[in-house]
Amino acid sequence: MSGMAGPPRLIVLLTDFGLKDHYVGVMKGVILSVNPEAHLIDLSHDIGSQDILEAYFLLSNSYRYFPPGTIFVAIVDPGVGTDRAILAVETNRYFFLAPNNGLLGFLEKEAGVRRIVHVQETRFFLSPVSNTFHGRDIFAPVAGHLSLGVDLGEFGPALKRMDTLEAPSPRVTREGSLVGEIVSIDHFGNLVTNIPAVQLPAAGPLEIRVGKSSIRELSPSYGSGPKGKLLALLGSSGTLEISVSQGSAARKTAAQVGDKVRVIHRPK
Amino acid sequence: MSGMAGPPRLIVLLTDFGLKDHYVGVMKGVILSVNPEAHLIDLSHDIGSQDILEAYFLLSNSYRYFPPGTIFVAIVDPGVGTDRAILAVETNRYFFLAPNNGLLGFLEKEAGVRRIVHVQETRFFLSPVSNTFHGRDIFAPVAGHLSLGVDLGEFGPALKRMDTLEAPSPRVTREGSLVGEIVSIDHFGNLVTNIPAVQLPAAGPLEIRVGKSSIRELSPSYGSGPKGKLLALLGSSGTLEISVSQGSAARKTAAQVGDKVRVIHRPK
Amino acid sequence: MSGMAGPPRLIVLLTDFGLKDHYVGVMKGVILSVNPEAHLIDLSHDIGSQDILEAYFLLSNSYRYFPPGTIFVAIVDPGVGTDRAILAVETNRYFFLAPNNGLLGFLEKEAGVRRIVHVQETRFFLSPVSNTFHGRDIFAPVAGHLSLGVDLGEFGPALKRMDTLEAPSPRVTREGSLVGEIVSIDHFGNLVTNIPAVQLPAAGPLEIRVGKSSIRELSPSYGSGPKGKLLALLGSSGTLEISVSQGSAARKTAAQVGDKVRVIHRPK
Repeated sequence: MSGMAGPPRLIVLLTDFGLKDHYVGVMKGVILSVNPEAHLIDLSHDIGSQDILEAYFLLSNSYRYFPPGTIFVAIVDPGVGTDRAILAVETNRYFFLAPNNGLLGFLEKEAGVRRIVHVQETRFFLSPVSNTFHGRDIFAPVAGHLSLGVDLGEFGPALKRMDTLEAPSPRVTREGSLVGEIVSIDHFGNLVTNIPAVQLPAAGPLEIRVGKSSIRELSPSYGSGPKGKLLALLGSSGTLEISVSQGSAARKTAAQVGDKVRVIHRPK
Repeated sequence: MSGMAGPPRLIVLLTDFGLKDHYVGVMKGVILSVNPEAHLIDLSHDIGSQDILEAYFLLSNSYRYFPPGTIFVAIVDPGVGTDRAILAVETNRYFFLAPNNGLLGFLEKEAGVRRIVHVQETRFFLSPVSNTFHGRDIFAPVAGHLSLGVDLGEFGPALKRMDTLEAPSPRVTREGSLVGEIVSIDHFGNLVTNIPAVQLPAAGPLEIRVGKSSIRELSPSYGSGPKGKLLALLGSSGTLEISVSQGSAARKTAAQVGDKVRVIHRPK
Repeated sequence: MSGMAGPPRLIVLLTDFGLKDHYVGVMKGVILSVNPEAHLIDLSHDIGSQDILEAYFLLSNSYRYFPPGTIFVAIVDPGVGTDRAILAVETNRYFFLAPNNGLLGFLEKEAGVRRIVHVQETRFFLSPVSNTFHGRDIFAPVAGHLSLGVDLGEFGPALKRMDTLEAPSPRVTREGSLVGEIVSIDHFGNLVTNIPAVQLPAAGPLEIRVGKSSIRELSPSYGSGPKGKLLALLGSSGTLEISVSQGSAARKTAAQVGDKVRVIHRPK
């Protein structure tokens, strides 16, 4: 049975729960209790605690690589137990479940949102519902039922729109340089910026500044140049990345998420 | 095929092996060599090294959320290679494999143990059996065969009972206050106690003391109150939890597993 | 459908990508987009950054435990984006995908390499191919197609041989003692050496030296002796291991990967 032939059955989990506790495992147990045929994939469970923006970037860079019909369950939820809504969203190709806190905001910019539903129908929830673990009590059973082919409209009333968040985007200065920022630092210590490839100067000399470091060219790959050299290159998310050949740019530059990165075209 | 229609095929793994080494992956290889249709789920592999009690709490708070027929393989096994027995246990709804060291002790309090077997039949083991990795050589192939529908009795002789361990439980003082303790600290820094919701005063003022901190009310959710406020609430395991709004109670209080938590009804 | 009846569908992933980022999850999305029936298992994603030798040891100690037909995707790839080749290798029982950097060198010593192919056919790749994430753009879709039964020869031209690396092996001194080294330190702090069981003296007194510590006997299991005692025993990979009863040998000895371990037969 392919993902296309029957109801969707691939469920992708993204949380800030970590893997030490039973939280993620128990969610899987609940999903499989509803649909023993569900196919569960972990995207990440190491989002910083309550860091909605980190989850936003990670999911927005990932979802396109999954097959049509995939159900994404994204839980970074500082408001669990309060009156924040839980959303179920259907796009042209995918389903998403998340708290209504901006985490799914990237969907608005990208075409294809068909329906937004406020998940309210308690007959799909575990009973009783705790105030502290909606992942187990609401998200998991709803994902399970969605994967069985239950129509989105069954879970609650339609919403016109969802909350978004102000994801940082690069700006152009009066002098014509481009100022973006580091939006994540990966496992290798690569500094991932929000400066898209298409905004970089197509030709001519350039200078890239991060902290006290300066880089004068774009390199083709992580392995370019001698060990320890600071490099700028186009990363796999389509944005400018700062890297160190066979090393960690985070360690070499001591940069942090939120630090500015400046691209100067035709520097003097 | 549902978990009910055929032999059980969902196998849940809980160990202190960590995820850095090949240990967990190799166990999965052995299980899938026996039963390519087995469906493997990780509950946690980050139990503290040889911390049987931590595994006891984690598994006892988790197993009910899995579908009937699930096979739990729980390995925290300081006695590997000694003469400690390996147990296979069948309850009304589940199967469990674990060393006979108290890890499964919670099953005795909860109704439904049908059979306890001392796993001894070497025809189900890898050959040779190492003295250092029974997860690979015994637990994994036995779990694989169990998931193929082999009857529990095939694995060895019946036992009347298994070892238990003295899990800490709260006590009532002469003055009528309730003294429990922190039994785990989760990824978010929440302090999980062993004080069940049902033992908390149903009404009237109360005071909860942990270390030098005092809390005067139960909050409904993690998001209650301003950022940084210390909260007491009912956690998802049905026990009292100490938390910090948008923060870490472990960091704020410096509390550790084993620290006492006192609940005073109608404090002066 | 068993792993034998149809095309191979078990795909085992080994990388240095970590689990914090979306890298591993996205690779799984790409594989499942090609073959929704693929069964994905994580061997480890915590190989030290660009530590080819660590991946070599881990994979060489693991692959035999997986069912015939398993596809191993091993990515520790300092040369990503340079002109290093990507290899697809078929042995008597398995398939392997890895960069041509020595990671698969152990296959040459062990019988059974049937075919080595230089993966070049871009029609199996994502398009465009980034210079920084061949795991997503090349390895994942090629693994997916391999799991659908595409013949190895379809992916590119045959190679006569692959690169190997100089894995350290123990040597015998003029005085007849055996000098090996620590090749990995596991999650429990066990020091895993490269000294095979078969090279240890079959009888008679012996002394094992690591750093300033000396051990005078082989113990049967991790649980031998009182808590805190330094032990030498045969580990699950078939080599000499240094361990501490209910503790960590890494902490007790402060030993590191690469440190020498000396076995003296009939010491004075």
